[in-house]
Amino acid sequence: MKEREIPYKIYLEENEMPDKWYNVRADMKKKPAPLLNPGTLQPMTFEELQGVFCDELVKQELNDTSPFIEIPEEIRNFYKMYRPSPLIRAYCLEEKLNTPAKIYYKFEGNNTSGSHKLNSAIAQAYYAKKQGLKGVTTETGAGQWGTALSMACSYFDLDCKVYMVKVSYEQKPFRREVMRTYGASVTPSPSEETEVGRRILKEFPGTTGSLGCAISEAVEAAVSREGYRYVLGSVLSQVLLHQSIIGLETKAALDKYDITPDVIIGCAGGGSNLGGLIAPFMGEVLRGEKQYRFIAVEPASCPSLTRGKYAYDFCDTGKVCPLAKMYTLGSSFMPSANHAGGLRYHGMSSVLSELYDQGLMEAVSVGQTEVFEAAELFARSEGILPAPESSHAIRVAINEALKCKESGEEKTIVFGLTGTGYFDMVAYEKFHNGEMNDYIPTDDELKLSIGAMPVVE
Amino acid sequence: MKEREIPYKIYLEENEMPDKWYNVRADMKKKPAPLLNPGTLQPMTFEELQGVFCDELVKQELNDTSPFIEIPEEIRNFYKMYRPSPLIRAYCLEEKLNTPAKIYYKFEGNNTSGSHKLNSAIAQAYYAKKQGLKGVTTETGAGQWGTALSMACSYFDLDCKVYMVKVSYEQKPFRREVMRTYGASVTPSPSEETEVGRRILKEFPGTTGSLGCAISEAVEAAVSREGYRYVLGSVLSQVLLHQSIIGLETKAALDKYDITPDVIIGCAGGGSNLGGLIAPFMGEVLRGEKQYRFIAVEPASCPSLTRGKYAYDFCDTGKVCPLAKMYTLGSSFMPSANHAGGLRYHGMSSVLSELYDQGLMEAVSVGQTEVFEAAELFARSEGILPAPESSHAIRVAINEALKCKESGEEKTIVFGLTGTGYFDMVAYEKFHNGEMNDYIPTDDELKLSIGAMPVVE
Repeated sequence: MKEREIPYKIYLEENEMPDKWYNVRADMKKKPAPLLNPGTLQPMTFEELQGVFCDELVKQELNDTSPFIEIPEEIRNFYKMYRPSPLIRAYCLEEKLNTPAKIYYKFEGNNTSGSHKLNSAIAQAYYAKKQGLKGVTTETGAGQWGTALSMACSYFDLDCKVYMVKVSYEQKPFRREVMRTYGASVTPSPSEETEVGRRILKEFPGTTGSLGCAISEAVEAAVSREGYRYVLGSVLSQVLLHQSIIGLETKAALDKYDITPDVIIGCAGGGSNLGGLIAPFMGEVLRGEKQYRFIAVEPASCPSLTRGKYAYDFCDTGKVCPLAKMYTLGSSFMPSANHAGGLRYHGMSSVLSELYDQGLMEAVSVGQTEVFEAAELFARSEGILPAPESSHAIRVAINEALKCKESGEEKTIVFGLTGTGYFDMVAYEKFHNGEMNDYIPTDDELKLSIGAMPVVE
Repeated sequence: MKEREIPYKIYLEENEMPDKWYNVRADMKKKPAPLLNPGTLQPMTFEELQGVFCDELVKQELNDTSPFIEIPEEIRNFYKMYRPSPLIRAYCLEEKLNTPAKIYYKFEGNNTSGSHKLNSAIAQAYYAKKQGLKGVTTETGAGQWGTALSMACSYFDLDCKVYMVKVSYEQKPFRREVMRTYGASVTPSPSEETEVGRRILKEFPGTTGSLGCAISEAVEAAVSREGYRYVLGSVLSQVLLHQSIIGLETKAALDKYDITPDVIIGCAGGGSNLGGLIAPFMGEVLRGEKQYRFIAVEPASCPSLTRGKYAYDFCDTGKVCPLAKMYTLGSSFMPSANHAGGLRYHGMSSVLSELYDQGLMEAVSVGQTEVFEAAELFARSEGILPAPESSHAIRVAINEALKCKESGEEKTIVFGLTGTGYFDMVAYEKFHNGEMNDYIPTDDELKLSIGAMPVVE
């Protein structure tokens, strides 16, 4: 056992917790491209967006100049219920790997929603409440975002309407019941409740739904109802802003012990966790103060950064949302079945896409089996059962630590452990039974979906 | 919102963590009655017990004189992976209840096993490893104990063999997969692996198993195999000793802010959580230094303290274990189906039974529906999804807080939140659908099972 000069867990005191979010866009010389109105191909205006999103959130979405935005006291009070989250030194994993590397992970699974999603859910619910709204609508696939939003709405006595992809609604009854426990109404999508739902049901009577369809229903339910707005759990710049709490706490905890990371690693689906984790460190790089390596890890089955195109595309398969410039596989891309539901998005947040395009961040893709091997090794040594999504970051952190073992370097590796795998035991079961699917899309498949994208000059 | 002079969560620093367990028996003038050999009705000796349990654990089981027992460094290192657990001030619940009471809860769900069981599992695994054993065997019903033991054995590279009641094995595949993830071998019981299993399968070909049968198989597997011992997750005095870490941390955190509790509440099945939580406070009472109210909360469907008899009884339905003097409903008592699997034990730890008999502790029983009402209220206000077992304590803590609301008293209430309900969503679903079972055993039923107990003079 190595000598433990650093505590196993670094907790911040309540008074050391950040009281402002950090907006990395403010320090970017070349800003992420704006959202475009798909009809006019002009940047979306405040007025166009405020019918769908809360006013304050639209302001945050459009604000790429203010580096710090104050966290309202009500949100800070809620954060105190489960934050600061611990920054954990992976002593046991290091020992198991016999590596000279020092591994730290920021653990965001310490709340009932089981993931980092709650950081943005509570902010979005708060602004909806403050605006005097009755409720919010959203879609959920696997259910992590829906769970987080239900908790947040319950806290502010806000109505919460979740459209859950029908196949998940039926096959993941536990997630559904968690949302109901927090008072949300959960509707299997497509439903008879919306025009688009009825149309789809008529066209495809036996359909089990899709995320694209659930988004369309949630957006329709929000805009057609007095006092409701639509909310989204990733991809948007406002969500990355709220998630900067992860990075700010991580940095404060490292600073407290004079630790400088060499490499910072996170899994990336829509990009909200990774964007939040790296934000303040990336800020230092952008301001020319420091140098770090940043690694985005995506599944080989849905490789938007490593094999996608940087272009304007629809954010949803239903094509009702604005166009965003991002690394994308095309909104018609359907990833093969895998167990990291949170990483199956065809595109990547505009902020991360731009940073990647500027060469400030690396990206790698990893296969499912190697991810679960890392997950199991991690569980057995660190005691935490990781979510499949989070395990993508674990895989690459372990790979980096093993490189240090070969080279003898004592690098400091920090990675984001976004959540727990309690609701993912079907995936672990398949892994134990050797039934993992390691399918990787062919070049022809990607050519097809990327070729079907809208052409925006 | 009340002014928050106390932080939402009170964490201890690593150097404030207890380095000794507290053995409440040492301060009891009248000690708990000893375990008896069912054949001779004489107290079990070290030699008789060491074939089943590890030597060091037998010593702890028989030691009712040493008040403090050092926690070995290896166990303290493991504790640091998930301890100290937070003592949380339930500000949001207080506000929802509009009570002047101050409510604190000690949250033991902050680890993958999802409950306090890990505190003893790691200790038992450590002593097995230290004795040079190859592995341990145990039984599990709902799976919380089996999960905790699997994690602990994985940490010490110890073989772990879990006999899981067949009906749970089939209906709770997720718990099973968690154990497999940690490297345990999980066998549905009854199995063909043991003599007793084969006999039972022959006698009752279609049986779905029982805890009694699984215990018998686990004990046989341990004693018939070179280098194996049997371990148990509750009831025994050694387990209460390990669980004293809960109470010691709670007391240290309260002392840090000069808080004196008026009432301390815990759910009680076999008694390990409650016994651990109250231990150091009870010590003060026994030594005449302080006064507190202690409340044990049990399910109305399995009311060993409130409606049982204080007498010698078998610890298991298979009648292979020693006799223990305890409040018991008789080892043949079969509680009606309920969702608090951890509280369905027919008896109560000898230590708690004796303290209750001496009038030092109160006990109440509560129905399932009222427990889940409390659970949901708690989840919505505090954000943590509680296990059904833990929710028994929540129910009574809320009841006490509501009494304070009526009387205007500012009492300080502390309760133990033993774990999370992630694997209990079937129970929540039944609650949402109004399908709870609130059956309470009749006097005649209890007369029957209590009447069937062995007569020990």
